[in-house]
Amino acid sequence: MLAPAATAPIIQAMSDHTLTLYSYWRSSAAYRVRIGLNLKGLAYAQVPVHLVQDGGQQHAAAYTTLNPQHLIPSLQHGDLILRQSLAILDYLDETWPQPALLPADAAGRAHVRALAQMIACDIHPLNNLRVMQYLGRELAQPSAAQDAWMQHWMHTGFAALETLTARTSRSAGFCFGPAPTLADCCLVPQLYNARRFKIDVGRYPRLLEIEAACLALPAFHAAAPEQQPDAPA
Amino acid sequence: MLAPAATAPIIQAMSDHTLTLYSYWRSSAAYRVRIGLNLKGLAYAQVPVHLVQDGGQQHAAAYTTLNPQHLIPSLQHGDLILRQSLAILDYLDETWPQPALLPADAAGRAHVRALAQMIACDIHPLNNLRVMQYLGRELAQPSAAQDAWMQHWMHTGFAALETLTARTSRSAGFCFGPAPTLADCCLVPQLYNARRFKIDVGRYPRLLEIEAACLALPAFHAAAPEQQPDAPA
Repeated sequence: MLAPAATAPIIQAMSDHTLTLYSYWRSSAAYRVRIGLNLKGLAYAQVPVHLVQDGGQQHAAAYTTLNPQHLIPSLQHGDLILRQSLAILDYLDETWPQPALLPADAAGRAHVRALAQMIACDIHPLNNLRVMQYLGRELAQPSAAQDAWMQHWMHTGFAALETLTARTSRSAGFCFGPAPTLADCCLVPQLYNARRFKIDVGRYPRLLEIEAACLALPAFHAAAPEQQPDAPA
Repeated sequence: MLAPAATAPIIQAMSDHTLTLYSYWRSSAAYRVRIGLNLKGLAYAQVPVHLVQDGGQQHAAAYTTLNPQHLIPSLQHGDLILRQSLAILDYLDETWPQPALLPADAAGRAHVRALAQMIACDIHPLNNLRVMQYLGRELAQPSAAQDAWMQHWMHTGFAALETLTARTSRSAGFCFGPAPTLADCCLVPQLYNARRFKIDVGRYPRLLEIEAACLALPAFHAAAPEQQPDAPA
């Protein structure tokens, strides 16, 4: 962890209801949660967990006690430790219902959840740091093959998302309806990641339209990697 | 699709509220949904989608119209098409609340969702058929390397699940509390998959205890791959 956190114990019983996010500026899963927290208007502290420095601070014992998966993000709310970005977003939505991150009806909720999971289950985990490290170290794949891998899974997922978001009559400015949902919390970080890895996102005009609507909102802008305290100057 | 489905149009407006599951007997994601449907006591029809025959029936146009990800399962409920196993389970839980697949409190729900996502986001998508095909075809990895890949991600995930399920004071017979939840719907198929790929599951005594409690229930037993209409004789 960076200096401010390293001097304080990471695990402490907090009797108040402070929200503390264990985050990394460029992590797409942490970015989702930051968007959710911002959309809800919740104040939170950040403990940066650097995914590369010190052999990966997510592997430090102080952090793996909180998160045995060695993955970020984790969110501490009082004494409670929350893990997995989608589960955290659901928790935020249940605990602070307004503004809602899911539609009110079961059919709409299922559609939004499916869009979010198309990213959070079927794109991002395949392109995660630990997977790229495995491709490089264990499978001796050169960086061109790693890039092709990443592009393959992103294009596969984006193509399906483009089809579904273009088809839905309830799509307005956002993935589904006139306000951002769980799906938008996932889409924007995934498109950020895509650009970082030079994916041609121009193939997905509907997704770019949604992204533009999202980034016009302060909640999304403030959650962006470059705005985080641990982003390089 | 197999014979009964191939003779009927796959997409049809159903004005009743029939439940139809597009499934494959050995798919771990379809297995999750079958457990959920059975726990709710819901009757459903199955349309088998063979993942290998005909170059993979999940790639047939009739199916990709339903599911642009070319993935199973999909669940049709009346006119509604549902995708992504976790989103489908949430839909079932919202539409038929009893017996509940999630605890009543937000903290318990977040914990159960995180356990489910540790499997559905961070184990299974890495070991999915399409990923193994990519490792073999595009990256020319021999089967020993594919097995090592699969074992690596399963052991990584199971170790974290063992830690969390052993730690929780609310764990009883199941992943969390005295009744099966979303997490159990994911765990049992993942352990089935682990045995199929010769993973040493003996390292995870707590997970095996949970699995035994689940498999003692008819809902889990009836959802097992070997019990499905498309399982080989």
